[in-house]
Amino acid sequence: MEILITNDDGYQSKGIAVLLRQMEQLGHVTVVAPDGARSGMSNAITVEQRMTLKLIEHTPAHDIYITNGTPSDCVKLAINIIYRGGKPDLVASGINHGSNSSVNVIYSGTMGACFVAAEQGIPAIGYSLCDHNPDADFSDFEPHIIPITKDLLRRGFYRRMCYNINAPVGELIGRRFTRQACGHWENEIAEHFDQDGNPYYLLQGDYVNEEPEAIDTDEYALAHHFISICPCSIDMSLKL
Amino acid sequence: MEILITNDDGYQSKGIAVLLRQMEQLGHVTVVAPDGARSGMSNAITVEQRMTLKLIEHTPAHDIYITNGTPSDCVKLAINIIYRGGKPDLVASGINHGSNSSVNVIYSGTMGACFVAAEQGIPAIGYSLCDHNPDADFSDFEPHIIPITKDLLRRGFYRRMCYNINAPVGELIGRRFTRQACGHWENEIAEHFDQDGNPYYLLQGDYVNEEPEAIDTDEYALAHHFISICPCSIDMSLKL
Repeated sequence: MEILITNDDGYQSKGIAVLLRQMEQLGHVTVVAPDGARSGMSNAITVEQRMTLKLIEHTPAHDIYITNGTPSDCVKLAINIIYRGGKPDLVASGINHGSNSSVNVIYSGTMGACFVAAEQGIPAIGYSLCDHNPDADFSDFEPHIIPITKDLLRRGFYRRMCYNINAPVGELIGRRFTRQACGHWENEIAEHFDQDGNPYYLLQGDYVNEEPEAIDTDEYALAHHFISICPCSIDMSLKL
Repeated sequence: MEILITNDDGYQSKGIAVLLRQMEQLGHVTVVAPDGARSGMSNAITVEQRMTLKLIEHTPAHDIYITNGTPSDCVKLAINIIYRGGKPDLVASGINHGSNSSVNVIYSGTMGACFVAAEQGIPAIGYSLCDHNPDADFSDFEPHIIPITKDLLRRGFYRRMCYNINAPVGELIGRRFTRQACGHWENEIAEHFDQDGNPYYLLQGDYVNEEPEAIDTDEYALAHHFISICPCSIDMSLKL
């Protein structure tokens, strides 16, 4: 089995090292990751600018490439340049440092990479731990990676589908299939002033779950110590 | 009526001038647009870097602000800084130079801005003309902007919903409500070599419609000289 790993925190992040260690148990791994942090890059692609692709590590178990591109670029570079039009059996993205549940899915570079894979008909799974800390503790989540991955591969993938896995921090009491909670961010922009008194703006925000009573959402699962397994689709057409 | 306009081609593009001219017929317009091209930015947001926001034009009919941020940032800056937590009655994004039909919707900065508005419960419409040319001819599409916008506002918006409008170039024989065609891009990366013989990569691609026979898709409408009106949702959960 050939597995492509990417992420949006960059090749040196702790989360991608955990994912690599786990995925090597399933097959040969090719890592194509950004050369630095690309959080909040969503499905951004590099248009009209030069992208790099550099092999920095080669072992019998894995190859590691880095690029100046986005997570979405990573998947496109892998398919077209490394696999020469061929496709891996799985795209595994993450493990992200931070939640990609609820509306965060539309901003997530981790999931953006999965959406590119879904476009290409490749099974794809995004893994996220709800802890932004660069030194986040993945030890509770890590033993679940292989069992979840094997289970989802066995279930199969519809066209244009992928999975968005989120794990809460701390003790985990099980897994649940979920849907994306309806929620939004508030107070998203902080105004600051530089030394010359000129204003500048930084992103921040408070998340609001608009349906805290619903028991089938990713947010509910996470709040109750379950790993959330949310099937997603890149078909954004409204379904009534 | 207060209308927020943004786009991903930058405030100097021809398409945003057309949209401004039309939207001023509906109410007061606030433009918050990137200070340059942001094509393919999807829902990218600026994380941990300083954003600017500068008022460059004020008339009784409109205010124009520019920012170094993304299309998604434009909507967040407008809501939080310009409207101070209030909300416009409509977010109008575009007119994009180039198609945002089919799978392009996930890469589109034009639609990314609409998705932020949909998150915030603001009616949002993205407008795109299927011509990448900076000097594209919007004259066939322009007379349809106000009638379509009024019609969609009258119909109302579900929670998390927005519209993705695409117009083909040339003669238009009507409008159709559509769904997102299933399609993908191939041959997306071109390998080049610089003067020193080092490889670099540029994005390109050939679009493949995977369901050319389906008559209810955006691609079908566009191929048959109809304006495509595709209702979208930021709920990416798989619906079976």
